[in-house]
Amino acid sequence: MTRAKWIWYPGDFELYHHLLLSCRRQEKGCDYPCAWHISRPEASVRFRARFTAARPGSFTVYARGKGMVRFGGRLWRVNDEAIPYTGGAHEVCVELYNIEAFPAIYVNSEALVTDGGWTVDPYNAVPVPAACEPAFYEKEDDPAVFPFAYEPLSPVSTEQTQGGVLIDYGRETFGPVCVTLPEGAEALLVYGESREEALDPVDAFLWERLTSADNSPRPARAFRYLFLQGPAAAEAKVEASLEYLPIPDRASFSAEEPGLDAIWDTCSRTFHLNTREFFLDGIKRDRWVWSGDAYQSYMIARYLYHDPAVTERTVIALLGRPPYRLHVNTINDYSAYLIISVWEHFAATGRRAFLGQIWQNLKALYAFIASRLDERGFVVPRHGDWTFIDWGVLDKDGAHCFEQILLWRVYQCMALLSAEMGEPDEYTPAADALRGRVLDTFWDEEKGAFIDSATSGKRFVSRQTNVFAILYDFVDGAKRQSVIGHALLNPDLPAITTPYFKLYELMALCKIGCIEQAQDYIASYWGGMLKAGATSVWEAYDPTLQGAEHYAMYGSPYGKSLCHAWGSGPILLLCRYCAGVEYLGPAAFRVSPSPGRYASFSACIPVGDGEVTVNYQKPVCTVRASVPGGVFFDGVSETPLEPDKIYTFRLN
Amino acid sequence: MTRAKWIWYPGDFELYHHLLLSCRRQEKGCDYPCAWHISRPEASVRFRARFTAARPGSFTVYARGKGMVRFGGRLWRVNDEAIPYTGGAHEVCVELYNIEAFPAIYVNSEALVTDGGWTVDPYNAVPVPAACEPAFYEKEDDPAVFPFAYEPLSPVSTEQTQGGVLIDYGRETFGPVCVTLPEGAEALLVYGESREEALDPVDAFLWERLTSADNSPRPARAFRYLFLQGPAAAEAKVEASLEYLPIPDRASFSAEEPGLDAIWDTCSRTFHLNTREFFLDGIKRDRWVWSGDAYQSYMIARYLYHDPAVTERTVIALLGRPPYRLHVNTINDYSAYLIISVWEHFAATGRRAFLGQIWQNLKALYAFIASRLDERGFVVPRHGDWTFIDWGVLDKDGAHCFEQILLWRVYQCMALLSAEMGEPDEYTPAADALRGRVLDTFWDEEKGAFIDSATSGKRFVSRQTNVFAILYDFVDGAKRQSVIGHALLNPDLPAITTPYFKLYELMALCKIGCIEQAQDYIASYWGGMLKAGATSVWEAYDPTLQGAEHYAMYGSPYGKSLCHAWGSGPILLLCRYCAGVEYLGPAAFRVSPSPGRYASFSACIPVGDGEVTVNYQKPVCTVRASVPGGVFFDGVSETPLEPDKIYTFRLN
Repeated sequence: MTRAKWIWYPGDFELYHHLLLSCRRQEKGCDYPCAWHISRPEASVRFRARFTAARPGSFTVYARGKGMVRFGGRLWRVNDEAIPYTGGAHEVCVELYNIEAFPAIYVNSEALVTDGGWTVDPYNAVPVPAACEPAFYEKEDDPAVFPFAYEPLSPVSTEQTQGGVLIDYGRETFGPVCVTLPEGAEALLVYGESREEALDPVDAFLWERLTSADNSPRPARAFRYLFLQGPAAAEAKVEASLEYLPIPDRASFSAEEPGLDAIWDTCSRTFHLNTREFFLDGIKRDRWVWSGDAYQSYMIARYLYHDPAVTERTVIALLGRPPYRLHVNTINDYSAYLIISVWEHFAATGRRAFLGQIWQNLKALYAFIASRLDERGFVVPRHGDWTFIDWGVLDKDGAHCFEQILLWRVYQCMALLSAEMGEPDEYTPAADALRGRVLDTFWDEEKGAFIDSATSGKRFVSRQTNVFAILYDFVDGAKRQSVIGHALLNPDLPAITTPYFKLYELMALCKIGCIEQAQDYIASYWGGMLKAGATSVWEAYDPTLQGAEHYAMYGSPYGKSLCHAWGSGPILLLCRYCAGVEYLGPAAFRVSPSPGRYASFSACIPVGDGEVTVNYQKPVCTVRASVPGGVFFDGVSETPLEPDKIYTFRLN
Repeated sequence: MTRAKWIWYPGDFELYHHLLLSCRRQEKGCDYPCAWHISRPEASVRFRARFTAARPGSFTVYARGKGMVRFGGRLWRVNDEAIPYTGGAHEVCVELYNIEAFPAIYVNSEALVTDGGWTVDPYNAVPVPAACEPAFYEKEDDPAVFPFAYEPLSPVSTEQTQGGVLIDYGRETFGPVCVTLPEGAEALLVYGESREEALDPVDAFLWERLTSADNSPRPARAFRYLFLQGPAAAEAKVEASLEYLPIPDRASFSAEEPGLDAIWDTCSRTFHLNTREFFLDGIKRDRWVWSGDAYQSYMIARYLYHDPAVTERTVIALLGRPPYRLHVNTINDYSAYLIISVWEHFAATGRRAFLGQIWQNLKALYAFIASRLDERGFVVPRHGDWTFIDWGVLDKDGAHCFEQILLWRVYQCMALLSAEMGEPDEYTPAADALRGRVLDTFWDEEKGAFIDSATSGKRFVSRQTNVFAILYDFVDGAKRQSVIGHALLNPDLPAITTPYFKLYELMALCKIGCIEQAQDYIASYWGGMLKAGATSVWEAYDPTLQGAEHYAMYGSPYGKSLCHAWGSGPILLLCRYCAGVEYLGPAAFRVSPSPGRYASFSACIPVGDGEVTVNYQKPVCTVRASVPGGVFFDGVSETPLEPDKIYTFRLN
């Protein structure tokens, strides 16, 4: 028998916390609901179990919600009734509703405990194994309260200014703040990711009016600076805490490269601050869950945490529940990334139970995508669609080549996932037909690359589209070389300006062997940001800006997020391409380092329950894995890596 | 400009109150969740309006939920911020979430009020006109609280017995009870529809343990008797109220028939007690909303109240929101009745806006039904289906003829509804093909009627199946006569034993001209029930039972509901068939009285905003309508009825 834990209908925990999270955005004193539809957890479900008791005993069903227990031919109350059983085989059913949160139960008796051996159904779907989270093992636990950890924060400085007190916590942080004001006093609490924002109650995003009557913790928010404005501010007691998920880093990387340790640490810290119930885009402004941002977070988390929990919660939250009437986050590309993410997650982890849990919903999302294709089988903008791709110069007239490449990858991933689920492959023929039509429609022989739009007549070649043609191996042979030469390495094309898409570009450059460009960019862009004062990675960075100019974006002087997950890309680039560790399955990995311009580096990358260490001192690389399943690849041949054995390779 | 009212996303009010209602069942101290899936209201929606101000002013958005107002290029708070506007044209958008209940707003300013001129969308569907209920006109009103009326109840007797106090309110009732106990005292409050139930804390369905610490109103429940048991019961103060919807009766009927007035009054009172947020089946036991029971309630309400509100709320609640994965109430027939109900409601009322509101969901329900047909196009029992039809002797092996007749009627209704919605008719060819297959498969020439099952080989003829063949005009000519003779009027077939199906049978008998049988049955069945002590119509009545035997059902001594809506059928029979008033549209009706065995009767039946009075004194009938649109039909020819003119007809 396993350890007793709170159990619920799979998905309810994630949907409930996604709902709460999506409604937590605030802006300039207003609550700011999420800009897309959010699925709700089930209001009522039915839990069932069979058990065999060696001897008579009793059990109590603790419940979050109201309902009853069917046992031994009668009804019993939840929470306050000990239900006797005899020795022998029994069946039990608990019917429960919870309108405020979601139904959950807990039983911890000698013969019966709540665990994955229970099934649960929402009255209109087949019973499935109950879900749980490792945080909820005691009957006093409440799955409706997300299990964050807290640590008190200490200011690095306090300053009286502008009729108040400015407190600096030294670096970007996130958490609840308690302010105890003198009896009868009032004050304005302004949150600032920058000093300028905290001191600007007009344009700051987050502020709240406080009175002495309430010194309860304020909702957790992002800040580095707190500014308490009012006559009694100097007498107030301000207590701030860090609210976080205690997930240990399992990857490390250092190199003979000035500033790289600080870049890694800042990327890791930024990523942790955005790792919450789900992977956030940024902790200050919208605090929502975006599938495109999350796609990058899954890749980064695979290395940094090597823990599937947040990735799987994020996928469940983004998928929601059918019917699907608009794309994920309303964005065409974001629906596609979600399906691609699921395959890449499964391919790396082999998490079959998770795949089974989401499979029907994933197929429904695929069917939604398929229902919106045009007569050529192309993704085209339909009512309510947002073809995002990237902020930047793109030709979005009509069907966009970028979206077709994503669709082609969706077909591939659905084919691979269907094979895992034992279902027929309806996707590969569609993928092959689509690839032919895309080459016919979007390949521009003269430009030697894919054009964005075949509708506008502009024959515009963007880096974005061609980066994905390389990343997803949409082309090979001569066309691949042409795309590299005419797009990826063509200085005349407009540069990618967002760190979001920059990561894809740098991945593609690493993939084609240009890791030095990624290393240079890490040094200049991330290094430059840190020199400009960043304590976490910003949503964007432009070295030509000065001072508070850095904080402006979206038409607002502090609109830029100063702690944005997509800025943590160097973790992925260094682990995946420099240390060269690629996950091929739950117990299979390939090591193929590319030192690039680093004369030496030292990396420790998680693989399965262990890790692989890769140490490079030009020109020699030593590799040691603590678990089986690895191979070293020098670009020509593979060498199996036996556990705990040190291998030495000379890199060319 | 219309009067300001609270507005919300259409359906949210009904789904929220349906959720609350479905979770209110209690049984023997346990909360008892609903046995099927219940749709939830949206968690977040977006309200929009355009308005033109003659001069500058301001408005405040009152909200149930949290969110913000987008107006004049910035965000404003809800509830506590006066938002200034200039003279001229404006647009406003309110984004709101409400996790506990459903989002709703109220604006009442000179230039802008909340009314049906606003649109609202849940972020993944097209904006539609906002919904409202006439009860919520003031900013202090709360649409999450259903607007019931209350009246104090006075006991007719109080008796000390069995260690407590038994209070008799004289007749079946429903409402909250407050019990004030002496300081420190405890007591058990037992509810009884019968004296026996109230005095039997072991088998009574509803009871609650009370302490002196809480004298707040207990949840509204059904009872005639309250039994307060405990040493302090005699000193307790017990205050009970009737909780009800103040809907006036608009129909009346009396005849020269002993006891008929009491039967009518008891039917009306029973129907009112079951008319709540939605039409209930019965007020004591499950208090859920069942589509089959509701189908009869819609028909009865059309005459008794002539008010579409409860019917439309009930349809919305039963429809819920897609995806549909099981039948309405899990019952095949109940999905069919819901679609048929919508057509019959529309045909009688012409309520086009309501039809538009539910049309997409109704089509989705139809698609669900269609998705479960077999290769012959027959309704067959699929996993999770309950082929109910009726409690009684039926041959449910394989495809059931009854379900095919309902499906044929569904096709007809979908064809008629599609025409109203301006959509193509995909249904009539399917109906015609199905009718042919049903005749081929289920018509038994030797038995001269439809058999239930063509699978079992039993060739069993039920009244139920053949009643619907007549009610829905599935057959005509010789086959119709054969069904009448070999099934409806065949004394050798098993009798129908439920009042539920008895109503359909009596409707069919009236339709074929046998109104006397209905009149006899009203006198014996309903008259007999009243003689046995009923103060509201029971779920079932068997004249062979004695005393408390009447209260047993479903294996429980008080399992029978003593206040069941489906027992109010005489209202329908008397209005529709005896007075003979048939609704042909919102402003069209036909009067075709059938006095049967009554030597005289007097009926007043609502038609549109007026009424038609039908007075019969054998052999003369006088008819007077207060509104246009009526015709008198004597079985041969029609006579138009001019408003307020008295017509005299001699009935054969």
